[in-house]
Amino acid sequence: MRIIIDGFGGDNAPLEVLKGAARAVNELGVEVTVVGDKEKIESCAKENGVDISKLEIYHAPDVIDVCCDPSKILKEYKDCSMAVGLRLLHEGKGDAFVSGGSTGALVFGATFIVKRLKGIKRVALATVLPTVKEPCMVLDVGANADCRPEMLAQFGVMGSAYMSRHMGRKNPRVALANIGAEPTKGRDLEREAYRLLSSSPVNFIGNIEGRDIPLAGADVVVADGFSGNMILKTMEGMGKFISGSLRGMFSGGIGAKLSGLLVLKKLNEFKKKMDYTEYGGAPLLGTARPVIKAHGSSDANAFCNAIRQAKIFIESNVLEEISAGLDELKNKENVENGQAE
Amino acid sequence: MRIIIDGFGGDNAPLEVLKGAARAVNELGVEVTVVGDKEKIESCAKENGVDISKLEIYHAPDVIDVCCDPSKILKEYKDCSMAVGLRLLHEGKGDAFVSGGSTGALVFGATFIVKRLKGIKRVALATVLPTVKEPCMVLDVGANADCRPEMLAQFGVMGSAYMSRHMGRKNPRVALANIGAEPTKGRDLEREAYRLLSSSPVNFIGNIEGRDIPLAGADVVVADGFSGNMILKTMEGMGKFISGSLRGMFSGGIGAKLSGLLVLKKLNEFKKKMDYTEYGGAPLLGTARPVIKAHGSSDANAFCNAIRQAKIFIESNVLEEISAGLDELKNKENVENGQAE
Repeated sequence: MRIIIDGFGGDNAPLEVLKGAARAVNELGVEVTVVGDKEKIESCAKENGVDISKLEIYHAPDVIDVCCDPSKILKEYKDCSMAVGLRLLHEGKGDAFVSGGSTGALVFGATFIVKRLKGIKRVALATVLPTVKEPCMVLDVGANADCRPEMLAQFGVMGSAYMSRHMGRKNPRVALANIGAEPTKGRDLEREAYRLLSSSPVNFIGNIEGRDIPLAGADVVVADGFSGNMILKTMEGMGKFISGSLRGMFSGGIGAKLSGLLVLKKLNEFKKKMDYTEYGGAPLLGTARPVIKAHGSSDANAFCNAIRQAKIFIESNVLEEISAGLDELKNKENVENGQAE
Repeated sequence: MRIIIDGFGGDNAPLEVLKGAARAVNELGVEVTVVGDKEKIESCAKENGVDISKLEIYHAPDVIDVCCDPSKILKEYKDCSMAVGLRLLHEGKGDAFVSGGSTGALVFGATFIVKRLKGIKRVALATVLPTVKEPCMVLDVGANADCRPEMLAQFGVMGSAYMSRHMGRKNPRVALANIGAEPTKGRDLEREAYRLLSSSPVNFIGNIEGRDIPLAGADVVVADGFSGNMILKTMEGMGKFISGSLRGMFSGGIGAKLSGLLVLKKLNEFKKKMDYTEYGGAPLLGTARPVIKAHGSSDANAFCNAIRQAKIFIESNVLEEISAGLDELKNKENVENGQAE
């Protein structure tokens, strides 16, 4: 198994990518191809004493910036490390692709270079988030600001496949992010998506309000990319707000300081639980081959985790499960529309 | 000044309404009219030893349930305590109305019974939320699942007026909830609202992502009712998740328990800060006269706070400020469209 990784994606590239990739080769029993400017990679490894002898380095002269228009990955930036890596994946020169670079460019590039699974309307960006119990998946979290109901139904199938195969969750509970419990709540988008999900092959449990997401009300939360991004980022901001406030509380007075010292260790444990980068990167679901978006601030540990995630993604046959689910979804729709299967 | 309160709105009505109203009369120097079934109110007061001699009781035989279709407040439930209270407000028999009952019915009833300020397209439900620094206002949080750009621009004007007049915030920073910082981010709704807010009379600082809302990135966050509800409820759920997790951490082992005892007091302080009911109810902005939605789970203290909030709402001339802002917004639009002022 060979994982391709973008050598120049993320704030700490290429050094942390190289360190993470070297560790992955040693620890995970995978082969890794690092894509990027060969000369820069070799001098960075030399300067920092990173052993890259077990890595394959594939040259790509350019880098696409996060501020850049994502669609430029197809023409102006077709020789950037991300575009070249995606092409290698498409050509079968590897089994999965990992990048910590621009989310927009990765979604765009994956859609048009790696292409979509048959029948998939849109690629979704999915994130696994902490809850009071086991982590849950929210998708889409930003790849598609505007969605149609059929897309949300497909997100449900894809999220369910990932959570059951990759995360080993049995019969994952799929819910639709909404502003109330009743099927009539929300916009036309949610009302129609509710209907489609109700007759889909997933274990659809109905609507979920924002409050119940961190309280483990579902294993998969389906949302349009705008709402999903609001949920994800608000959770992130609240985590920072609260851990910051608690730290502040234990910085004044001797009594507070004393209890604070005892508390700090606990807070750090908690912070680790809250840190969704611990769960690896965000998988792009719906692409023809596995693509993982590593967090932009990833360090060697996070890149190694993202490579581990890519490995499990492949081994657990998530894509086959998605395809099977899509077929079933389509058949159910046909039956409902009175067409022959 | 006379505040009208719904005697049968909320989980703890009428007892906690009566206790809160009686306290408000004594402490705040306001007159209070409680609307609801006179016989039930009198027997409840007698049974529980609440002195209601200083309250005016206005009879309304019916109660509208939270599960009921909101539009029924106009016909089938026109004699419910909420509808009667709204009519009293419309007729000038009081200066503001407070209810802990059905949000949907209150928005619907306020819009059609109390009516809107001249030029207002939609009434918005606004909530004041805690942040790392001073609290901020998010609106709309659920009155309008579907919004047009002009509505978001008006929400900006209304939120800014409330935060400056009611909360004393100088030149409030108004931001648009979005999935990225650039003006081109989001859906057509956000792109057009961004343009309108940029040329509006408010201190518009651009887009805000979910992460920066709890981190005090703005004083007023403008959102469609669907996204605003996701933000509000996700913050609420995260608060519960985190305080629950921290409690759990200090329940095992002697060392943990010891530090936990010292920590509990701090956690309770924090919980109080996180409890947005402490800031009073959620004002409906855009109605012709002040209407406050008290939390459904309000106790006497929360009802008294909501009455105090109504009092400040009136005294601080929020409605005049909103009207002035709307005029300015309209003039700017006219100038932009090349029409004479």
